Amino acid sequence: MATVTVYGPPISTAVSRVLACLLEKDVPFQLAAVDMAKGQHRSPDFLKLQLRGEALSYQDDKFALTESRAICRHIVDKFKNQGNKDLMGEGVLERALIEQWLETESHKFDPPSSELVFFLAVAPSLPEPELPPTSAIEESKKKLEKVLEVYDHRLADNQFLTGSKFTLADLFHLPNTEQLMRIDETRNLFERHGNVSRWWKDVSKRESWEKVIQIAKQPPPMA
Amino acid sequence: MATVTVYGPPISTAVSRVLACLLEKDVPFQLAAVDMAKGQHRSPDFLKLQLRGEALSYQDDKFALTESRAICRHIVDKFKNQGNKDLMGEGVLERALIEQWLETESHKFDPPSSELVFFLAVAPSLPEPELPPTSAIEESKKKLEKVLEVYDHRLADNQFLTGSKFTLADLFHLPNTEQLMRIDETRNLFERHGNVSRWWKDVSKRESWEKVIQIAKQPPPMA
Repeated sequence: MATVTVYGPPISTAVSRVLACLLEKDVPFQLAAVDMAKGQHRSPDFLKLQLRGEALSYQDDKFALTESRAICRHIVDKFKNQGNKDLMGEGVLERALIEQWLETESHKFDPPSSELVFFLAVAPSLPEPELPPTSAIEESKKKLEKVLEVYDHRLADNQFLTGSKFTLADLFHLPNTEQLMRIDETRNLFERHGNVSRWWKDVSKRESWEKVIQIAKQPPPMA
Repeated sequence: MATVTVYGPPISTAVSRVLACLLEKDVPFQLAAVDMAKGQHRSPDFLKLQLRGEALSYQDDKFALTESRAICRHIVDKFKNQGNKDLMGEGVLERALIEQWLETESHKFDPPSSELVFFLAVAPSLPEPELPPTSAIEESKKKLEKVLEVYDHRLADNQFLTGSKFTLADLFHLPNTEQLMRIDETRNLFERHGNVSRWWKDVSKRESWEKVIQIAKQPPPMA
């Protein structure tokens, strides 16, 4: 019996991050889609779970959490003896190295990549499309490029960002990268970096991630 | 004997975050100031420690780390049996709640507050001052205000962000808040929220933070 429920549209980057983590850890879950276009994520029932009115909530028995990265850290912590046991490393030193790359993702990769996902994938598909100024797009691309250079350097000697094992640091990058690989002008930024491209081929073919993509294509009925 | 060295200007938000954590955990350390104006943080010696050429590095014997939040998490992990033992809570559930507020800090509070620190405190004091457009400042203020509303609501029933104990979630907010409390137009944003103001009075008076402020006033000689 699934005791874990994830509320939110599986196509959102936050929800897909949590699903990938649950699949890596072999945690059974159920998914309750929320219709953002109808503002369901702001309905009183959903807000009980989610103070900030965003598109994701996680419920485990009567314990509710929000913020995708915090949820993933909790899943790894709670289910430490099952599924992929490498996600947060072993011992203080391995963990410290992973933390460093988790922070790099949060503070360097996420801001420009989330902006680009919004500008190029979300905004044009809104009922009243908002077209961001070209200068904002170029600024985000420049920032992302700088980060990818550091990654390319790092991935020259390492199969994954933190060494020879796939960890939460790699996993946190999957949702935004997946979106940006579907858009010509941002896919180019990644493909320009040989090691980053090789890494993406590796990590995007993981069984867990392929399953997330499958779920996003056939989301469950609306809650 | 101190085996921990922090490289960087103690006035920087990243360095002061790490110092506060070391002081809470009673970890002896030495501080090696780096002259950013002279670009010392980009010198080959410093870059050996700090791939990304930023203003902070942490060295513990021969193990070097960067990214202030990752360093703090490592300090809490490594020195778990000394100093303040509440910083990451006890048990899976407490930890999960703290993680949630750590992510809120990283993804909601930090972006607008760091922008405002840069716009209003750093940029005007650069050798060639860069004056940001008023619209950018207003945009960041609006985003910060939205976050502070959520915090004020949270702090109505809780002494600290995660409950009745001071944790890493509170600590991570100290550096940017300290800077913003020194500037009229941003101090107002905080003072407009009664619970946030009460929380700030509490957390900014901690012995650890008062010591950090002291160190920043009398930094060690340049390395």
